[in-house]
Amino acid sequence: MLKLPLGYRYAATYAGIRKQEKDDVALIVSESPAETAAVFTRNVVQAAPVQLSRRHLKSGQGKITAVLVNAGNANCATRTGAKVALASCKAVAKALKTKTRYVLPASTGVIGVELDAKLITSAVPKLASQLSASAFDSVAEAILTTDTRAKVASEAVQFRGGMVRIAGMTKGAGMIHPNMATTLGFVLTDAAVPAKYLHRMLRDATERSYNSLSVDGDMSTNDMVALLANGAAKIKSDPKDLKLLNDALGRVMESLARQIASDGEGARKLIIVRTSGFRTEEEARTAARAIANSPLVKTAIAGSDPNWGRILSAAGYSGIAFDPAQADIFLQDVLVCRKGVAADFDEPGLKNRLDASEVLIRFVLKGRGKGEARFFTCDLTEGYIQINGSYRT
Amino acid sequence: MLKLPLGYRYAATYAGIRKQEKDDVALIVSESPAETAAVFTRNVVQAAPVQLSRRHLKSGQGKITAVLVNAGNANCATRTGAKVALASCKAVAKALKTKTRYVLPASTGVIGVELDAKLITSAVPKLASQLSASAFDSVAEAILTTDTRAKVASEAVQFRGGMVRIAGMTKGAGMIHPNMATTLGFVLTDAAVPAKYLHRMLRDATERSYNSLSVDGDMSTNDMVALLANGAAKIKSDPKDLKLLNDALGRVMESLARQIASDGEGARKLIIVRTSGFRTEEEARTAARAIANSPLVKTAIAGSDPNWGRILSAAGYSGIAFDPAQADIFLQDVLVCRKGVAADFDEPGLKNRLDASEVLIRFVLKGRGKGEARFFTCDLTEGYIQINGSYRT
Repeated sequence: MLKLPLGYRYAATYAGIRKQEKDDVALIVSESPAETAAVFTRNVVQAAPVQLSRRHLKSGQGKITAVLVNAGNANCATRTGAKVALASCKAVAKALKTKTRYVLPASTGVIGVELDAKLITSAVPKLASQLSASAFDSVAEAILTTDTRAKVASEAVQFRGGMVRIAGMTKGAGMIHPNMATTLGFVLTDAAVPAKYLHRMLRDATERSYNSLSVDGDMSTNDMVALLANGAAKIKSDPKDLKLLNDALGRVMESLARQIASDGEGARKLIIVRTSGFRTEEEARTAARAIANSPLVKTAIAGSDPNWGRILSAAGYSGIAFDPAQADIFLQDVLVCRKGVAADFDEPGLKNRLDASEVLIRFVLKGRGKGEARFFTCDLTEGYIQINGSYRT
Repeated sequence: MLKLPLGYRYAATYAGIRKQEKDDVALIVSESPAETAAVFTRNVVQAAPVQLSRRHLKSGQGKITAVLVNAGNANCATRTGAKVALASCKAVAKALKTKTRYVLPASTGVIGVELDAKLITSAVPKLASQLSASAFDSVAEAILTTDTRAKVASEAVQFRGGMVRIAGMTKGAGMIHPNMATTLGFVLTDAAVPAKYLHRMLRDATERSYNSLSVDGDMSTNDMVALLANGAAKIKSDPKDLKLLNDALGRVMESLARQIASDGEGARKLIIVRTSGFRTEEEARTAARAIANSPLVKTAIAGSDPNWGRILSAAGYSGIAFDPAQADIFLQDVLVCRKGVAADFDEPGLKNRLDASEVLIRFVLKGRGKGEARFFTCDLTEGYIQINGSYRT
């Protein structure tokens, strides 16, 4: 049962953007302007809604009343993108009687295809009239593209003055049908959080979740994660309380990232890469990312092949200058490589254990430091090729 | 017909390293110590033969009499690797009556499995007795692993004083069965080339060939390309002659790199990515590499899908800060994206043209500079997954 934060309402409907008749436009509305932090794609090609969201957060001083999301069209690399995004936000502002700059737009779907603003602007009044505190799941469904399931997570956090809640939804599944797609994430809390702290919380949690996640190494033009705090719980918080909220945010966003990796295009297995013994967390993450991004490692796991040489080699080209003779590698907690050379292990037994739906790769360095990291990815199967190779046919 | 350089002899035999009875050890011998330049993997995990080759080039001041190659075992990440590599070189030195430091060892195959030195040392006398000036192709066959065909290229170059020749062989095919594999390249000329110039020639040609090539983005522990110049043509050369040789080396190595990409694991299509209008060649290569490495681009080409959004996005996350509104994209010379947005094109017609065995992607920037680059890769198909997902089963 989701622990939904107070003071938010939700609605989703079908506006005709995607061919399949399935909700493709959605609203998340806060009863009062919420303090909002957001992180965006670092791709130099940025979709119109990403550009407009940045502007709105700046001009509105980080206050957001409504998040408007559509699926089926990324509103990116088109002639009219900026106009369409603005017209959509204006329609929401009008329907909700709020300021245009308090509306945060987000899009996911095909890129390079003009999006008809009317499809969204005509759906907005309907959305506004349907807002409901319990429709969180409908929005989580409406934002999906090639995902096979909705991805949500929540927690209740006991502050000294009472309970607050934090809930998130996300979409992902890789770079996606039909053109490519996008990681979108929306996390809502009814705690009151000072702007500066909110930004730091989101940045740190993003580093350990969405930035520690890879399906195929591609980075979308539309990626965006937003964290809204509307204070509707009306509970005072001190630094200790906020630390608890920060930890809960970390768990919620980690859960969302794991769900994305598990549901990667064509994936049969979630792969968790843990690296330790590096000089810094950043170093450890770089090595973990190289292992997680290696098509050879991902295909080996798909085939339940305890192929530690590929793991050692991937870490080796990560750019971190470690000594291979100090590296141990564990697969499903079985030592397969000790000090850079083969360990004795029961290969048929390990192959069986690699058939699990979750595979843990541990890369343990000695004598370099205490930096550790964790990275989520998925195995690489024929399904990925099928999904991505022929969508337009 | 290959233009084989004078003063080299070749031999290959089956030493029992690989299971399949197919030549797996080979020698290339120069009649006199050849001036030699080599480039090696930048992976921090380096196979024993890579480490020993570096040492021999240093202690022998860049002179090489023999190249000893084996396939079937990478001699990497094992307890006895260094000893095995050294014993093998010693056996060659003894059989050829040359210095151990004039022997350049190279290995490719499974990593993490002990290699029995005796398999090689007992094969060496046979190899030495079989050396022949015409067995170039047998060596080119012996070094292959998952490659489906041998890869060779050669040219004759008219110096003012007469003709010299340059010939190369290579193996590749991606990161490879059974554990992972390796790009090896050996290029031989009978011209006399000063050491300093030889190193620069190889470095430049490598940048435009092997370093502009990607099958799956993985970098092996055993990669190595060596260029030998033995002067056996006995033709004097001046700077203009050497420039001609340099150009021929560029073409030979480009051909070898193209052949590797064409024969990528599971590949049905060679993909050539050309980028232009960047500030520098390096910038252009970075963008080309991002496009060539994108699994989304590679699966799109596999499906003959004119999916330019993925190309634009991949360039966008390459780290080069270009303006998307200045980007044109061509597929098979058809303009598909103009100034960052969709161009009008005949989609069914273009799909047909994308069914070709060679696909050209051009990414043209305006107003940034004159830097251009070319990158080779291949499409990503179900075959890659099948080859790499289940080799040990």
